[in-house]
Amino acid sequence: MTTPVTPAQAGAQSTNHQVRLAARPVGVPKRSDWSFTEEAVREPNDGEILVKVDYISLDPAMRGWMNDAKSYIRPVAIGEVMRAGAAGRVFASKHPKFQAGDFVSGGFGVQEYATSDGKGVQKVDTRFAKLPTYLGVLGMPGMTAYFGLLDVGKPNAGENVVVSGAAGAVGSVVGQIAKIRGCRAIGIAGGADKCRMLVEELGFDAAIDYKSEDVKAALKTHCPDGVHVYFDNVGGDILDAALARLARNARIVVCGAISQYNNTAPVKGPSNYLSLLVNRASMTGMVVFDYAERYGEAAREMAQWIAQGKLKAKEDVVPGGIDAFPEALLKLFKGENTGKLVLEVPER
Amino acid sequence: MTTPVTPAQAGAQSTNHQVRLAARPVGVPKRSDWSFTEEAVREPNDGEILVKVDYISLDPAMRGWMNDAKSYIRPVAIGEVMRAGAAGRVFASKHPKFQAGDFVSGGFGVQEYATSDGKGVQKVDTRFAKLPTYLGVLGMPGMTAYFGLLDVGKPNAGENVVVSGAAGAVGSVVGQIAKIRGCRAIGIAGGADKCRMLVEELGFDAAIDYKSEDVKAALKTHCPDGVHVYFDNVGGDILDAALARLARNARIVVCGAISQYNNTAPVKGPSNYLSLLVNRASMTGMVVFDYAERYGEAAREMAQWIAQGKLKAKEDVVPGGIDAFPEALLKLFKGENTGKLVLEVPER
Repeated sequence: MTTPVTPAQAGAQSTNHQVRLAARPVGVPKRSDWSFTEEAVREPNDGEILVKVDYISLDPAMRGWMNDAKSYIRPVAIGEVMRAGAAGRVFASKHPKFQAGDFVSGGFGVQEYATSDGKGVQKVDTRFAKLPTYLGVLGMPGMTAYFGLLDVGKPNAGENVVVSGAAGAVGSVVGQIAKIRGCRAIGIAGGADKCRMLVEELGFDAAIDYKSEDVKAALKTHCPDGVHVYFDNVGGDILDAALARLARNARIVVCGAISQYNNTAPVKGPSNYLSLLVNRASMTGMVVFDYAERYGEAAREMAQWIAQGKLKAKEDVVPGGIDAFPEALLKLFKGENTGKLVLEVPER
Repeated sequence: MTTPVTPAQAGAQSTNHQVRLAARPVGVPKRSDWSFTEEAVREPNDGEILVKVDYISLDPAMRGWMNDAKSYIRPVAIGEVMRAGAAGRVFASKHPKFQAGDFVSGGFGVQEYATSDGKGVQKVDTRFAKLPTYLGVLGMPGMTAYFGLLDVGKPNAGENVVVSGAAGAVGSVVGQIAKIRGCRAIGIAGGADKCRMLVEELGFDAAIDYKSEDVKAALKTHCPDGVHVYFDNVGGDILDAALARLARNARIVVCGAISQYNNTAPVKGPSNYLSLLVNRASMTGMVVFDYAERYGEAAREMAQWIAQGKLKAKEDVVPGGIDAFPEALLKLFKGENTGKLVLEVPER
């Protein structure tokens, strides 16, 4: 399976441009928190592949990886290439499972070329979905939505499923899966355009614009019998509003808290958490990596939903290559993306 | 079954002294939030019993019942006799299930005599345990500890079970049941005397004095492999400390939040709630009334533990009758009680 062509013969550049973590950010990451480095693209050794990265996944979780704090994954070290999911093509392979020309996704980092031993690298089939979709619905965000909603939220048909960050990569999938399972889906997002998209394109029953509406009051309108499942991507005041409207035995899935990630003050804890007591409700954290053995099962079911037109993949592709990474990442925290945010990495 | 004697013949007074809610308290309840009323003791009608109240249960939950807010039970109305669990003797009965002389517990309220249709009234056997114990270990606090720990916390042998308010009516039972189930029991309480009592009398493995120790650091010492079950009676900073020390897949039981009940500012939400995400942990509310059908099962098992010397009943009996009720209740919020706080109601 050794590739007969060298990376250069296959069209690879000789230089790999990379983005490394230069400093631990305080609050919102600044451009000076990153360093831009170059190194030679090297041929793979035995057991390795060389991948040209075409799309880099931009995820809220990246902000946490930049902090020097104990979490579910070790922090990115200062000077290290920034951790990122990405998708691209195998340029050269000395790995028995991969051939030059294969499309793949994996943890390739914020760089143009990655050499990998193949661990955690998945072959993807671009006949079924385009490459960025393997970073979105068919990637980590899709897996997060699938397992978070179905395994942790355990929604029953007819229940009200509310999701925050509903226009984002995870939230947009949560609401659509809720609909597929016969639930009512109510999305919370910022801005009229996103809210219209949720209802008109993705089939949500209702959307609440947190920038112009009183979320607590709107939840009362849209969920008169209470919130049965709340899938939280944002934390902060919106989590408190959802807590105030829980139905008896409600389940809250704690997936993220993007409103709090750039805090310099302590995280705002949910003042209304005693609603858990009054309503015999639960709040449970989830990390998608725990479901790694079942990714295949979820991907197959979701690919089928896509093929049936029941699940729509939304991607927000930012041009500009890795030089544009620092600003592209901030779009997440400003709420500027609709669907899965990815950075396109063109040939130089 | 009609009693052959009138209440007066049985020794009842002719006047029933009562404590009623006079005003909704702001912060800590003041004596002026109560009114002290008298009415004639009346003979029971058909299907009723007349009970002389001997002990009144003082519970943190009472503070919540005084607020005009939606909760798991309706608020006490202004002018209404204050809701309370209590235990006493049947003085006269026109109810087929009860006879004069029976010892009973039920929701008799803060008054000296209660007429009841028997709903929610339990006969209790003072050969097995003294009357106040039926308001503690064998009453609501015991049931709360039993079902909250075993059904919600689901502790496994060898796990670290941490309970706050550990010297209180619920907490002292939680730790003892944890030990019976083969767990390590760590109590958090205020003051060296309470902490010594937990370890020396009740068999806890360790106790943390939140008044003199750094709770987070002490949890690290006593639970080097993390907190597997945290049973929370207090909320506030102690909840945050426990969140910071969770083990993977930890369960938090939200039973109460006595540190927050007299707040005039909003409840302090747990800043460290994202530890639920990092540790795939859950936080679940419970209300003991949901387990009413299984009280008998729990009481039988706990009575057996008491008989075997495995479970000790601690009561803190305050003298002074119902006139002393306002100040007696405050002992809970000042953390002055050890074990189940009850108010003794002597004959006048």
